[in-house]
Amino acid sequence: MTPLPQALRLLIESGPLAHLSTTNADGSPQVTVIWIGLDGDEIVRGHLARQRKLDNIARDPRVVLSLAGERDHDAVLSPYAVLRCTATFAPGDAWGLLDRLAKVYMRPDSTFPAPQRPGFVTRYSVERISGVGPWVPTSRG
Amino acid sequence: MTPLPQALRLLIESGPLAHLSTTNADGSPQVTVIWIGLDGDEIVRGHLARQRKLDNIARDPRVVLSLAGERDHDAVLSPYAVLRCTATFAPGDAWGLLDRLAKVYMRPDSTFPAPQRPGFVTRYSVERISGVGPWVPTSRG
Repeated sequence: MTPLPQALRLLIESGPLAHLSTTNADGSPQVTVIWIGLDGDEIVRGHLARQRKLDNIARDPRVVLSLAGERDHDAVLSPYAVLRCTATFAPGDAWGLLDRLAKVYMRPDSTFPAPQRPGFVTRYSVERISGVGPWVPTSRG
Repeated sequence: MTPLPQALRLLIESGPLAHLSTTNADGSPQVTVIWIGLDGDEIVRGHLARQRKLDNIARDPRVVLSLAGERDHDAVLSPYAVLRCTATFAPGDAWGLLDRLAKVYMRPDSTFPAPQRPGFVTRYSVERISGVGPWVPTSRG
């Protein structure tokens, strides 16, 4: 696991939509756009149902989370982060996590608009950081 | 190839950063964030160098482009489009295309800030559209 640079922590905590890339059984890429949060140096996400991305993670835990920073129209390469991660998931308080994230991704007083029920929590351990921005010293990976 | 709904054409022409997911030789996902444009019903992109994503496309042309629409903080699922595509590339006027896109992604009077030289043009033929927004009648794929 790579410790997360402070600039990346701030980006994640600002509530950017994250593009999650996993691999389907037939080897093709699968992408969904998700909310993410931090738990120490891990990135976390709740799921209220066992979705296809979880089946993909169970088969191959090598995934990528990519997220854009604030647009910079004076730069060819506007800031973004590409995080190669190892993902794991387990039954957990998905609703509680989603409710915490609703206050970031929706409004500060939002409640996650789904009935409370058990679910899964996915944890993403960041193995490599690339992209463009203060979270990566090198150029585009 | 799927004809592109007008709402998706408008989204693409507005200059959203696109997350391109390809597959590495070892089967893991690779993601870069790129500019895209339209050429008829195909999505196009210029590359001034033979990058790893082109090697990945040559090996497996099944790729995903994902792009976010305008954020909606009142919705759990802010608009986004996930485009499963078949990608091909060939030598072409990458610089001319990048210069056209610079006027969308940077400033209306921007010139692409790299020397003119030959390159590659990648064409993405959209096979399936999912996500959340007016470009997809069904819910999240």
